[in-house]
Amino acid sequence: MKAGALELGHASKVTSSVPKSGVNRGMSILDLFIRIIAIIATLGSAIAMGTTNETLPFFTQSIRFRAKYNDLPTFTFFVVANAIVSAYLILSLGLSIFHIMRSRAQASRIALIFFDAAMLALLTAGASAAAAIVYLAHKGNTKANWFPICQQFDSFCHRTSGSLVGSFAGVILIILLVLLSSIALSRR
Amino acid sequence: MKAGALELGHASKVTSSVPKSGVNRGMSILDLFIRIIAIIATLGSAIAMGTTNETLPFFTQSIRFRAKYNDLPTFTFFVVANAIVSAYLILSLGLSIFHIMRSRAQASRIALIFFDAAMLALLTAGASAAAAIVYLAHKGNTKANWFPICQQFDSFCHRTSGSLVGSFAGVILIILLVLLSSIALSRR
Repeated sequence: MKAGALELGHASKVTSSVPKSGVNRGMSILDLFIRIIAIIATLGSAIAMGTTNETLPFFTQSIRFRAKYNDLPTFTFFVVANAIVSAYLILSLGLSIFHIMRSRAQASRIALIFFDAAMLALLTAGASAAAAIVYLAHKGNTKANWFPICQQFDSFCHRTSGSLVGSFAGVILIILLVLLSSIALSRR
Repeated sequence: MKAGALELGHASKVTSSVPKSGVNRGMSILDLFIRIIAIIATLGSAIAMGTTNETLPFFTQSIRFRAKYNDLPTFTFFVVANAIVSAYLILSLGLSIFHIMRSRAQASRIALIFFDAAMLALLTAGASAAAAIVYLAHKGNTKANWFPICQQFDSFCHRTSGSLVGSFAGVILIILLVLLSSIALSRR
């Protein structure tokens, strides 16, 4: 009778823990999937910006009609930030796979949330600093006597604007990663 | 004998749970404390930038020698972002106090981590976009024919540069808040 009750208790424990760890595993797989998309987005952004280079077919006065991403230090920062974040995301795949196998891991999830948040800040900093400069290149600013350069460097402006998209997509994906990790942390 | 063992078990449970909830309460109080500092930092940044206004004592040609924060749209975004984040932080004080009283709360902690991460992104975006413009105002960019404006608007530049400090301090504090919340979530 007693042994039966114990067995029953044990059995009910097993059945209640199986779906929980199943959901946790599912979230860990989703985490891995989002990380891979974020790597593609940030790496794509870094490469798109890093290879931006436009030479105009004419040449007048003292102005050099050539535009490269590293003419503007902010764009260099953008490339570096995106490269660092995608390198971090590639390294974090290891922990993400570890969480699929061991869904009860805690310390590694806390570390992941902390570094995800730090990388979120770095990526957002790079993306929005570049966005501020792209906005200025399009609109200019009459008060500060900064003229828009996008009339001359049309393809340069298109390329730099486009490369922001992947970076901002990466920002949203990393916020989702933080949410997923915190849900997984609460469901041990 | 059996009752004694049960009591003993109960007693050991109580003693082991008291320090845990005590540490959790301590972390919740630290969370409240960091939030208050972050409110002061972001609100201070918003006010410092929002009241920036310099009129030069001379007037020549067609150029108006007056600089205000909203001459540059990026600085307006900076003020709005800081104001939204500080308003959110003030509202989140309620949840933070709730967590001091009920340290085992889970769903509200997950919500807090998610919104903290989103606000982290917003604050970083505002701060680094403004930083990109402040950098440009100091150094200019010869390739784009954007000249530095800080020689003329010295006090304007000092004020805007200074107001970035509180905002970046806020970024670091919010990363700490995310870390604290995730640790609290793992220690139920």
